[in-house]
Amino acid sequence: MFKSILVPFDGSKGAERALLKAVELATVCGNTPLSLLTVYKHHSMLEASFAIVRPDENESVDDVMRHHAREVAEQGKQLALNAGCANIRAFAKSGPTARTIVGFAREHQNDVIVLGSRGLGSIEGYLLGSVSHKVAGLAECPVLVV
Amino acid sequence: MFKSILVPFDGSKGAERALLKAVELATVCGNTPLSLLTVYKHHSMLEASFAIVRPDENESVDDVMRHHAREVAEQGKQLALNAGCANIRAFAKSGPTARTIVGFAREHQNDVIVLGSRGLGSIEGYLLGSVSHKVAGLAECPVLVV
Repeated sequence: MFKSILVPFDGSKGAERALLKAVELATVCGNTPLSLLTVYKHHSMLEASFAIVRPDENESVDDVMRHHAREVAEQGKQLALNAGCANIRAFAKSGPTARTIVGFAREHQNDVIVLGSRGLGSIEGYLLGSVSHKVAGLAECPVLVV
Repeated sequence: MFKSILVPFDGSKGAERALLKAVELATVCGNTPLSLLTVYKHHSMLEASFAIVRPDENESVDDVMRHHAREVAEQGKQLALNAGCANIRAFAKSGPTARTIVGFAREHQNDVIVLGSRGLGSIEGYLLGSVSHKVAGLAECPVLVV
């Protein structure tokens, strides 16, 4: 039923749960290929002054962010492989989170996005996390909120 | 992967799209039973004065609403049967839309809710319809927004 699944992954517990559900969905759909995407933000000069990360002399703050995002994506990939997923690729991209996810899905023709109901930057209460909300509203394909 | 699917159905184009996707999902999961739910609101005395419906003498406004909801649910059931769904039951319940859907899913132990991104009472723009947003935030099971 689905031919290409996208899982945004930020390393949170919610994202892990969504990833495992995506692996199940890929399996029932006949080993659908799975793309895992970790989105990181460009580090502005303003934010740089508050940065916790301390880049080496040879490394810009952006490089540190990219490196960290790649590590998170790689951890997600390992989790999916351990859960029995045979066909997964991990990506890290910078940009505004929801729009980057939706743009990636369009570009790669993913036909479903599986994501946690809230992750980093969540708010309390019953409200859906703002990233999940935006992705479900913006995406051109179905979105499974786990 | 899913053992019991719930599809809230209000007769809108978005709900029809979601229903057909739910039938596909039920099929790949091995003919999972599908519950279709049409929620209607209790007609308050205040709203009654604006009512378009003109109940017969023997029928209260609430009866008319219930009757209409049952018709909508029955149309949805026919649509699903025509799409090849073998195992479907249609329900009509009154109450606040999102909470009634989430409560029904809890009570019937549905393990996924499939619904349109917006239906009746939608707002313009990229925002997810308020019912879909609330259901995705409140539900204790995954929600597939179509």
